[in-house]
Amino acid sequence: MDADFDLVGLGNAIVDVIAPSDDDFLVAHGLHKGSMRLIDEATAEELYRAMGQTTVVSGGSAANTIIGAAKLGCRTAFIGKVKADPLGEIFAHDIRAANVTFAAHPAVDGPASARSLILVTPDGQRTMNTFLGACQALTEADIDVALIAGAQICYLEGYLWDPPAAKSAFLKAIGIAHAAGRRVALSLSDSFCVDRYRDEFLRLIRDGSIDILFANESELHSLYQTADFDTAVAALRNEDMLAVVTRSEKGCLVVTREETHAAKAYPVEAVIDTTGAGDLFAAGFLAGLVKGRDLVDCARLGALAAAEIIQHYGARPHADLAALAAENGLA
Amino acid sequence: MDADFDLVGLGNAIVDVIAPSDDDFLVAHGLHKGSMRLIDEATAEELYRAMGQTTVVSGGSAANTIIGAAKLGCRTAFIGKVKADPLGEIFAHDIRAANVTFAAHPAVDGPASARSLILVTPDGQRTMNTFLGACQALTEADIDVALIAGAQICYLEGYLWDPPAAKSAFLKAIGIAHAAGRRVALSLSDSFCVDRYRDEFLRLIRDGSIDILFANESELHSLYQTADFDTAVAALRNEDMLAVVTRSEKGCLVVTREETHAAKAYPVEAVIDTTGAGDLFAAGFLAGLVKGRDLVDCARLGALAAAEIIQHYGARPHADLAALAAENGLA
Repeated sequence: MDADFDLVGLGNAIVDVIAPSDDDFLVAHGLHKGSMRLIDEATAEELYRAMGQTTVVSGGSAANTIIGAAKLGCRTAFIGKVKADPLGEIFAHDIRAANVTFAAHPAVDGPASARSLILVTPDGQRTMNTFLGACQALTEADIDVALIAGAQICYLEGYLWDPPAAKSAFLKAIGIAHAAGRRVALSLSDSFCVDRYRDEFLRLIRDGSIDILFANESELHSLYQTADFDTAVAALRNEDMLAVVTRSEKGCLVVTREETHAAKAYPVEAVIDTTGAGDLFAAGFLAGLVKGRDLVDCARLGALAAAEIIQHYGARPHADLAALAAENGLA
Repeated sequence: MDADFDLVGLGNAIVDVIAPSDDDFLVAHGLHKGSMRLIDEATAEELYRAMGQTTVVSGGSAANTIIGAAKLGCRTAFIGKVKADPLGEIFAHDIRAANVTFAAHPAVDGPASARSLILVTPDGQRTMNTFLGACQALTEADIDVALIAGAQICYLEGYLWDPPAAKSAFLKAIGIAHAAGRRVALSLSDSFCVDRYRDEFLRLIRDGSIDILFANESELHSLYQTADFDTAVAALRNEDMLAVVTRSEKGCLVVTREETHAAKAYPVEAVIDTTGAGDLFAAGFLAGLVKGRDLVDCARLGALAAAEIIQHYGARPHADLAALAAENGLA
């Protein structure tokens, strides 16, 4: 079926405020390394004051994925909520600069645009503290029916379950996509997010709402409440969908009811900042899928995009991803 | 004489908005590669819309220098003007996060905080488009007498000659510093800035206002209106001050009436972005000076700090400069 877009993403529109940090700082502020926690505006201000010199760069999990896919040549669109304020302008500028259609209706009042205060430790791990702000104003009214119906794949981030009104927007998007014969992809976002919404995510998976699932190992363990990887994968194999499990330097596993494929990670010289690794993996995988590549090639393209992003600060690609893909026979 | 601070800087308080670019973009927008031009708010908005994905990080030439010196263990302060707005908050946060005393009185009305839209081409050169905004509100009233009088060296950037009222603040600071028996350092900022204010800069140099001068080759050529390096250096030798001429990968020359020393550049693996190279050179050199190192060691410390900054985006150090200095016997 013809489509106006290859991929439309729905997610929290967030600007990342990144600073180098160390383990002592995390301990002193009671932060759990490698996780995302939600914070209120006062906590955001307090933590910001304590952080070192920052770099400000647009982020947001699904937004990172959509931009990665755009850089790989996909026709993309994004739906997310910002306020008409400076951080909101940065977010809108940057996503449009990547040729993503961003038909936002910025909020004119209410909380400020969202930011995630990200502390990057020398091991390359990021600890995220997110003030959702204007993202909480995303509602069903922001879901553009024609946009969702006209995209081959509708991509959703699990984090969208956090802002209360976004959940109904999320479900509306699934309904529209499926009514139009499109596929719906979900990223589980992080293990704490899965802890918060396990039952609802499992229900979505099992009632046929989700066609493609992205999870890393800890998210998968959380979803099925098991510490054993093989048990979790076996559970996944019983679901009726295409699932991709990312395993950092161990590569990934593509799992369907019928088949399981493993793919390697791309070697990198040095890991600088793992922010966005999962997001860019999804970008590469989905770009492969809409181009009609087989599942192993999709996984390789995901791994290639993830390898690029972890070699620098920030979760938006620096290198020419399309050229990288071509060099690796994955264009 | 005892001092509260090793170094106080006076400069434009600017946030850098950096995007990768290419030569075609520069040509299409009539931009002169490697230079800084001043733009108004409307031009800033137009150029921003045309730029790609940006990284936002605090900048400002003298501010970069002061932060570099702080990271090298100097006791530092900075005077510059921001507005009470989001970019102004970013600037104030970042400079304070580096333990620099920043006793700002943010403007509550008037133009927005300054920003420099910086296009970085693949050759690592940066082309800067600066909207001075709130910097134009810097006046003599912002010059804290005790702060200037209490610092061993008062460091000024030539760019301060651009905002009209800042010139009198600049001259007031020189008067206070010299009355207190302190030294005054000036960076010529860029060759176009020297073109704009050549006569005034030469008068300052020759009336004893400037004790230490930083210039790169093109600024020096502009100052003495000659294309010949040796002629320019001979002219410099006739001035009664300590001058340092930076020459990119060719290292630098330290010139006084009595002696001339050459120092090498530190080898770097790859030049990513030369933004801040001169600023960080000055940081290292001045840090060496206040620590009582000889002129060659000062130059080596300057070269070391410059080498760090050109290996990543942005003009604020990523590495632990004090540790780098120690590893190189320059602590």
